[in-house]
Amino acid sequence: MRPRPARGRITALDAYDIRFPTSRRLEGSDAMNPDPDYSASYVIIRTDVGDGLEGHGFCFTIGRGNEVEVAAINALRPHVVGLRLAEVLTDLGGFCRSLVGDSQLRWLGPEKGVVHMAIGAVVNAVWDLYAKREEKPLWKLLADLAPEQVVALIDFRYVEDALTPDEALGMLRRARGGMKEREARLLAEGYPAYATSPGWLGYPDSKVAGLAREAVDGGFRQIKLKVGADLDDDERRCRTARGAIGPGVRMALDANQRWGVAEAVGWIRRLAEFDPYWIEEPTSPDDILGLAAIRREVAPVRVATGEHVHNRVMFKQLLQADALDILQLDACRVGGVNENLAILLLAAKFGVPVCPHAGGVGLCELVQHLAMFDYLAVSGTLQDRVIEYVDHLHEHFLDPVVIVRGRYAAPTAHGFSSTMRPESLAAYAFPGGAAWQTPYDVPPAEGSPA
Amino acid sequence: MRPRPARGRITALDAYDIRFPTSRRLEGSDAMNPDPDYSASYVIIRTDVGDGLEGHGFCFTIGRGNEVEVAAINALRPHVVGLRLAEVLTDLGGFCRSLVGDSQLRWLGPEKGVVHMAIGAVVNAVWDLYAKREEKPLWKLLADLAPEQVVALIDFRYVEDALTPDEALGMLRRARGGMKEREARLLAEGYPAYATSPGWLGYPDSKVAGLAREAVDGGFRQIKLKVGADLDDDERRCRTARGAIGPGVRMALDANQRWGVAEAVGWIRRLAEFDPYWIEEPTSPDDILGLAAIRREVAPVRVATGEHVHNRVMFKQLLQADALDILQLDACRVGGVNENLAILLLAAKFGVPVCPHAGGVGLCELVQHLAMFDYLAVSGTLQDRVIEYVDHLHEHFLDPVVIVRGRYAAPTAHGFSSTMRPESLAAYAFPGGAAWQTPYDVPPAEGSPA
Repeated sequence: MRPRPARGRITALDAYDIRFPTSRRLEGSDAMNPDPDYSASYVIIRTDVGDGLEGHGFCFTIGRGNEVEVAAINALRPHVVGLRLAEVLTDLGGFCRSLVGDSQLRWLGPEKGVVHMAIGAVVNAVWDLYAKREEKPLWKLLADLAPEQVVALIDFRYVEDALTPDEALGMLRRARGGMKEREARLLAEGYPAYATSPGWLGYPDSKVAGLAREAVDGGFRQIKLKVGADLDDDERRCRTARGAIGPGVRMALDANQRWGVAEAVGWIRRLAEFDPYWIEEPTSPDDILGLAAIRREVAPVRVATGEHVHNRVMFKQLLQADALDILQLDACRVGGVNENLAILLLAAKFGVPVCPHAGGVGLCELVQHLAMFDYLAVSGTLQDRVIEYVDHLHEHFLDPVVIVRGRYAAPTAHGFSSTMRPESLAAYAFPGGAAWQTPYDVPPAEGSPA
Repeated sequence: MRPRPARGRITALDAYDIRFPTSRRLEGSDAMNPDPDYSASYVIIRTDVGDGLEGHGFCFTIGRGNEVEVAAINALRPHVVGLRLAEVLTDLGGFCRSLVGDSQLRWLGPEKGVVHMAIGAVVNAVWDLYAKREEKPLWKLLADLAPEQVVALIDFRYVEDALTPDEALGMLRRARGGMKEREARLLAEGYPAYATSPGWLGYPDSKVAGLAREAVDGGFRQIKLKVGADLDDDERRCRTARGAIGPGVRMALDANQRWGVAEAVGWIRRLAEFDPYWIEEPTSPDDILGLAAIRREVAPVRVATGEHVHNRVMFKQLLQADALDILQLDACRVGGVNENLAILLLAAKFGVPVCPHAGGVGLCELVQHLAMFDYLAVSGTLQDRVIEYVDHLHEHFLDPVVIVRGRYAAPTAHGFSSTMRPESLAAYAFPGGAAWQTPYDVPPAEGSPA
């Protein structure tokens, strides 16, 4: 497909510091993040086309430092404002490389942390605008691209030793087979989800058991528990949850980077009797060799990681080193849709299932599009694939996710599902919004980074 | 040693955006950084002690984005201002962990990029204050610490599989032997340096030859050339430089991350006839496995990297994977002196020489202290050790480096040599300083990130 003809230019890139006071309730809690205030460094891209369409995107953060992300987004403005829309939309690969390639900003990474996440927010906002213009949900826009167009979106620098453009093209072409049938099935049945809400670290056992049972009754076939603070507590919580869900439902564990290598191995072995499906972030997301060592020692418990893996070069190595059983894509950690396409292709090349990270604010809304594109056009399968689901803050979005019997319904609204309600943007603006003026009057949302 | 008794508190942490318009001359140039404006996100820590002493530190950046670093430094202020000086100086390990451990800011890394570099600047500023209070240069202050005190400064999380606190303690204790003699030798003879100034990519061959000969005549036993933009040019430049310095002087090459794995191998093999001593940053600093593959293929040419390696977890793996012949410590990339102590110990454990990255603005001033401490108290040797030296912007410091016959003279002034002249801080403040008002009147300095 070709983008619809576009005459205008990008006239504005505005950044907003949006924070939800989620730390006010103690329910959001894991071993590393006791008190997150779910936040978005939010981007709106405007044009002079006159069609009223805007591109919305954001970084997800957990509070302090959201203003640093906003500063990084502002630093990208000169690369974006003034560009002809036609040039951007016909060469989104080049646009992305122009942001990553700013030699001065690159020094602050390269391709990691605050600046790279800001690039991701801007790139995602442009994709949102593109999909709105094409009057498609993003997953459908991506699936309608020709394989050659997808390959042109990807920066193969530093990953060609694992995946060449030609290999990617071959994979994408082969995946065209059966795509129509898969799309029909996706629209009819949705994409499987798993439930993190039962397992926050601060919950009493009775609440864990109740929520776990509720999730299974609601159709979820996998739940997740936070672990890593205290081994005796974890044993008791695992026993409680396993008792509540029975043997046929998958139970994942998440340590949020709490351990070193030896500690991870010992801890997971102690919990193995409860048949955990995966252990998530057992150690530093940077520790490729450490994760590989842990994986060798704790099999058959699977190792999952990704929400803090900062770029495609790290994912490439996690796959090369056999360090991962489950790749947890995140929509807002890397350089936007484009880099996530590279990561989806790498995962497919190595035969590792992608089970995206979500939760926070808006992560479910975004990442569902990438997982659905993967199903249609890359991996072609739902086998062992689940998208994380956490039930909070969706009400702030114009096109919130819809969960039916434990599955994400395919979004049909145009765009990337990334647009927050204007009244939410106003109320949760930090520090000026109403939510931050009346600290205990606004009903807070709950949760913790998943 | 115990810190001198301190009664006061830290009363201010101020951040300044300082930029030098180095891009105005074309001489600073490498394959990835065509036009750097050398910059410092500069920190001053003040107390109510009344002794007039301040702690100075900074992040080095290359221009755009320096304001993002300043925002990150400001985000750390609540963790610093109000602390009792006595508590900070008697537990600098704990202080450092309190910055790294902010769960909300940690989300923006973890331990990488903008936030981690900001932590490094703040930690280094506190070390500067500490050394000024003790009336010692930092290298001497560090060398005077007991082994137990050094170990207590280090965060072993995520590196204990390669280096335990007990191993570190044993290494430090063994290195006490001969320390007095090494200190006397250091004071008498200085620490070996190598010269990067001859090799900027934009220089014509005649200038490369002249500057290379000048460096050797000045006592340097190693020079460095930038490569990676054009292979034919690189061959010609290598031939020119090798001809100028003769066979007995080491010639390092630096590709500044330009290549993928296969391209790096092919390129370096073509240049091998000129007997390069090391190839620096042949690919992404994140690509541990790629660097290991390159190293296997290009031996006996050595692989060097480090200036963009973002934390101790990455260095640990580079060492575990046999990916490095030379470890290029940087004073401003990781979480300050404390994390660099971990990196020095890891390098010594694996028997890999440390040849610090310097240049930019102030990097020579800072990193000499760490290399000298390594010589006295960790590795105990100068064998194959050299600190990078680039001759620019030193005039802005109160205690600039002193090079004598190709060697760094050991600094004797109190502190971390990190204090810029007040008039430089005023003139190069961005965007308000005089240097940025009269764009072509101020004589610019030259250079490029080394």
